[in-house]
Amino acid sequence: MKTVGIGILGLGTIGAELARIILENAPRIREYYGLDLVIRKIYVRDLHKKRAIDTGSLPLTDQADEVVSSDNIQVICECMGGSGTEVTYPLVKKALELGKRVVMSSKKVLAHHGMELLELSRKNKAVLCYDATVGGGIPIEKVVENSFYYQQISKISGILNGTSNFICSSMSLKHQSFNDALKEAQKRGYAENDPSDDIDSYDALYKAEVLALCCMERIFDLASVTPRTIRGIRNIDFDLLADEGYTIKPIISMEIKGDDLSYIFGPAVVSITENPCSGIDYNNNIITVVGSRSGELSFSGQGAGKGPTASVMFDDLLNTLLYRNSSVLYNGVKPFQKLSEDNRALYIHLKVDDKPGEIAEIASILSRLEINIDKFVTRGKTGGSYDAFLFISKTDNIDRESLTKALKKHHVRILSMIPIVLD
Amino acid sequence: MKTVGIGILGLGTIGAELARIILENAPRIREYYGLDLVIRKIYVRDLHKKRAIDTGSLPLTDQADEVVSSDNIQVICECMGGSGTEVTYPLVKKALELGKRVVMSSKKVLAHHGMELLELSRKNKAVLCYDATVGGGIPIEKVVENSFYYQQISKISGILNGTSNFICSSMSLKHQSFNDALKEAQKRGYAENDPSDDIDSYDALYKAEVLALCCMERIFDLASVTPRTIRGIRNIDFDLLADEGYTIKPIISMEIKGDDLSYIFGPAVVSITENPCSGIDYNNNIITVVGSRSGELSFSGQGAGKGPTASVMFDDLLNTLLYRNSSVLYNGVKPFQKLSEDNRALYIHLKVDDKPGEIAEIASILSRLEINIDKFVTRGKTGGSYDAFLFISKTDNIDRESLTKALKKHHVRILSMIPIVLD
Repeated sequence: MKTVGIGILGLGTIGAELARIILENAPRIREYYGLDLVIRKIYVRDLHKKRAIDTGSLPLTDQADEVVSSDNIQVICECMGGSGTEVTYPLVKKALELGKRVVMSSKKVLAHHGMELLELSRKNKAVLCYDATVGGGIPIEKVVENSFYYQQISKISGILNGTSNFICSSMSLKHQSFNDALKEAQKRGYAENDPSDDIDSYDALYKAEVLALCCMERIFDLASVTPRTIRGIRNIDFDLLADEGYTIKPIISMEIKGDDLSYIFGPAVVSITENPCSGIDYNNNIITVVGSRSGELSFSGQGAGKGPTASVMFDDLLNTLLYRNSSVLYNGVKPFQKLSEDNRALYIHLKVDDKPGEIAEIASILSRLEINIDKFVTRGKTGGSYDAFLFISKTDNIDRESLTKALKKHHVRILSMIPIVLD
Repeated sequence: MKTVGIGILGLGTIGAELARIILENAPRIREYYGLDLVIRKIYVRDLHKKRAIDTGSLPLTDQADEVVSSDNIQVICECMGGSGTEVTYPLVKKALELGKRVVMSSKKVLAHHGMELLELSRKNKAVLCYDATVGGGIPIEKVVENSFYYQQISKISGILNGTSNFICSSMSLKHQSFNDALKEAQKRGYAENDPSDDIDSYDALYKAEVLALCCMERIFDLASVTPRTIRGIRNIDFDLLADEGYTIKPIISMEIKGDDLSYIFGPAVVSITENPCSGIDYNNNIITVVGSRSGELSFSGQGAGKGPTASVMFDDLLNTLLYRNSSVLYNGVKPFQKLSEDNRALYIHLKVDDKPGEIAEIASILSRLEINIDKFVTRGKTGGSYDAFLFISKTDNIDRESLTKALKKHHVRILSMIPIVLD
C-alpha cells in the first residue's frame, strides 16, 4: 500500500465535488490499485464560509502556501476558478518547482504562463495535468497525450464557451432576444454577473491558447489578438441565415500554415449541414482536431458543470499516479510568427437608406476593394431604410478596416460583420 | 537505449501502413524516448505477392507461429483483417499466453473471445490493446482507459459501420437508390464484394460487443441477438422522414438497466435536430457514451481507412511501451442477464389497398394491441394502393411479432418497420 498525500486549492463548486469524488472512491482505489489517497489539506480563503460539502472532517486551512509546500503532499489539485491569476499562478509555479504533480483547472493562468509552467515541470520532474481547463468534461488533453503521436495537427476548431453558445442557441432556436437569453443563462448559472469574459470571447481565447499549446506545442501572443464579441448579433441575423442554410456559432478556429496562424475567435457563420459546430447547442462544447494521419476527429460534451469538470480532474489525478510521469513537450514550445484573422468570407448586415442608387454604390465600393458579392438579400423595407445582408468573399483576406471605412464614408450603417467558415 | 522487438501479423493495407509509420518515426522515438523499435518479423500468407509497401528490406515470413513465439519479439501487432477468426484467434491467444504486448485490430475475434483474451492477458501479465477494432481513427479505447474512472456508464450509442452509413447518407442526401449507393461504396473501397456483414449490421454488432466490454466490462451472448439489416429501406422513407424532421441511421444503441440490456442494432429513425448521429454522414463514425459524472460525451471521426486505423495502432504501440502495463479489467466481466430490443416506438411503412375502411381496420388492429398512433401520413395514391407511414408507440416495448402477424392476417404489406430513437 502506497499513501498519496493530496492537497486541494479551493473548495468552491469544483473543489467540493472533487473532494467528494476522491473520498467516495478512495476505498476502491485502495483495493484495486494499492493506492491510499489521503486529502491532507484544503486551502480556502474563508474558514467559516458555508460550503456545498460538509467540512466538519475536512482538513481546511487558510494558508495556501502550507498546502503547496507540505512534504507529505505529493499531488496538488488546483480548483481556484474564481481567484485571480496573480493568486493562482505563483502557487502552481511553486508546486512545480517542488516537483509535485499538479492537476490544474484555471485556464487563464495556463493561457498566460503555460509555456513556462510546462518547461518548469519538465525541469523539475514534476507533472502538470490540465484537462479541466478546456472543454469541461471532454478529455481533450488526455486524448492528445495518448494519441496523435508524431502527427502534424493542421487545424483546431470548435466551440469552447458554453455561455455564449447558450445565448446563440437560445436566440436561434427559441427566438429569444440577446438580453433575455443572457438573463436566462445567468439564472441557470451558466453566465456570471459580469459576463464580459464569456460573451466577448476572452474565455474562449484563453482556452484556444491552451489547445494550441497542448495539441501543437505552439503559442500565440495573447495581447496581439482581439477576440470578437457576440454582442450586437440580432434575431434577424439568425432568421435570415437559417433561410440560407447557415447559423451563427461562437467558435475558435486555428489553422496552421507553416509558422503562421490563421484564426477566428468569436462569432462565425457556419453551414448547418456541413459544420460539426452547428449541431452543438446550448452549454455544450465541441473540439475538432485535424491530424495528418487521423483526419478530422471531433469530441463533444458538456463544456462546464461540476460533475464533468471535477470528473476530468479526478481522472487526471489517477492517471498521474498510475501512468504519467511527464508532461508532454517533445520539442519545446515555438511561438507562431504571423497571426492573421481569417476574413476570406464575411457576412455583413447593413442598414441601407431606401433611395435609388444605394445598392449600386455599395456594389461599386466592394468592387473597388476587389471583393466579390456571393449573395445579396434584403428584408424589412419600412420607413426610409431597409436591412441588407451580404455574403462577400475574396481570394485572400478582406481588409475589414478599409471596408468599414469605405462603407462608413458613404453613411452606410454596419450592424454586423461576421466571418463565414469556408471549410 | 532499450530495443523493442516488433512482430506484425499481416501486411495488407493496415499492416503495410503501420510498418511504414513505425519505420518513418523510429529515429525520433529513439531520440526522444530512448526506445529502439525494430520490426523483427512480418507474417504474410504469400511471400511473393506484390504489396503496397516495398518489401525488399522487410523480414517477411510465412510462418505465423514464428512471429508470435520469437523470444526477441515483445510486441505483436495483429493486422489480419481479411483472415478468419479461426486463424487469428489462436495466434493472439498464444501471444498473450507468452506474456507479450498485443495490439489488435480484428473486431470479430475480440467480439467472440474478448472476455477470455482479457482475462488471459491479466493472468500472464500481458497487455492487450484494441483501439483499432472499433471506430477507425476514434481513440475510444484509450479514452475509456484514461477517463471514466469509477463512473457508471449507462448508455453507449452511435454509428459504427461506415459502409451502411455511406449507403444511408447517399440515399438520403443524394437520392441514390440502395443498389447505386452500394455500388458506389464498393467502387470507393468502402464495401466488400460480399457486403452482407456490413449492411446486415453484423460488423456493427461485433463492435458493439467490444464497446460493451471496453466501457462496461459487460458482454452479451452474440448468438442470441439478431441485428437488423438496412436492405429494404427505400428513398421514399428518407423523403417522408425528412419532411417530419427525421432520418434513418445505421446505429447501435445499448442502454443498461440494472443487469439487463435494451438494444438497437441496425437502422433506426433519429431526429435530425436532436440526435448526434444525424449529422454524421458517409463513412464517418460516432460513439456516444453517457457517464454518471461526465454526462453525454461524443467522439466522431473517420470510421475506417488505412491512415486513421494504422495511426490508432501506432498510438497503442507507443502507449503500451510508455505507459500501460495492464489491460483494463477492474472487476472481471459480467454477462448481461436479459436482452431486449428497444421497440418502444416504431416507424412503419405499409402498402395499403385503396378501399374504404382500410385505415379504420389498421387502427383497430393497433388499438387491440394497445399501440398508440402518434402520426399517420399517406403518399402516392396510384392504382389500387398507396403508401401509409405510421409513427407508433407504447409505454413498454411493442411486440413486433404479434403486430406483424396481425397486419399480415389483414393482408397489409409491411415494407419497413424501424425503431425510432426516443432519447
